[in-house]
Amino acid sequence: MTQAKKTRANVDIYGKHYTLVGEEDLHHMRMVASVVDDKMREIYQANKSLDTTRLAVLTAVNTMNDYLKLKEAYDALEQKLHKKEDQD
Amino acid sequence: MTQAKKTRANVDIYGKHYTLVGEEDLHHMRMVASVVDDKMREIYQANKSLDTTRLAVLTAVNTMNDYLKLKEAYDALEQKLHKKEDQD
Repeated sequence: MTQAKKTRANVDIYGKHYTLVGEEDLHHMRMVASVVDDKMREIYQANKSLDTTRLAVLTAVNTMNDYLKLKEAYDALEQKLHKKEDQD
Repeated sequence: MTQAKKTRANVDIYGKHYTLVGEEDLHHMRMVASVVDDKMREIYQANKSLDTTRLAVLTAVNTMNDYLKLKEAYDALEQKLHKKEDQD
């Protein structure tokens, strides 16, 4: 995928400007940035003493936790599907 | 799940101390923190001019991107499984 076309998305997250570079389309990249922005604001509401770095790290931690749990569920589902296919 | 037992994990992420609170076990919470720490160091290696806040935000953005793509794949797999089950 080294020749894949790169997209540059200019986004604002928690009041700072970022240029994101990726292979996804612009709409998707803006959506991801906006979900991260929302999450940071949500965590801030729950603990207003957190600085921006801590807010961002905790957002990353929460999202990583969600990702790893979903990955487990995905692997289990895939196994279930393979078992079904073997039965056919 | 309001009565679920909460775990407190004391972890270090990118040189800062955090107390994570969650319903997962201590081992899982430490593992999540360590994956986030690794990701931040990986992004730093690729761009050494980034400050800690930007590193943390970009880690959150990358992880959210992975999560949302996995969610799509999970939903597609679930649909495939349901279709198979309907055929049986």
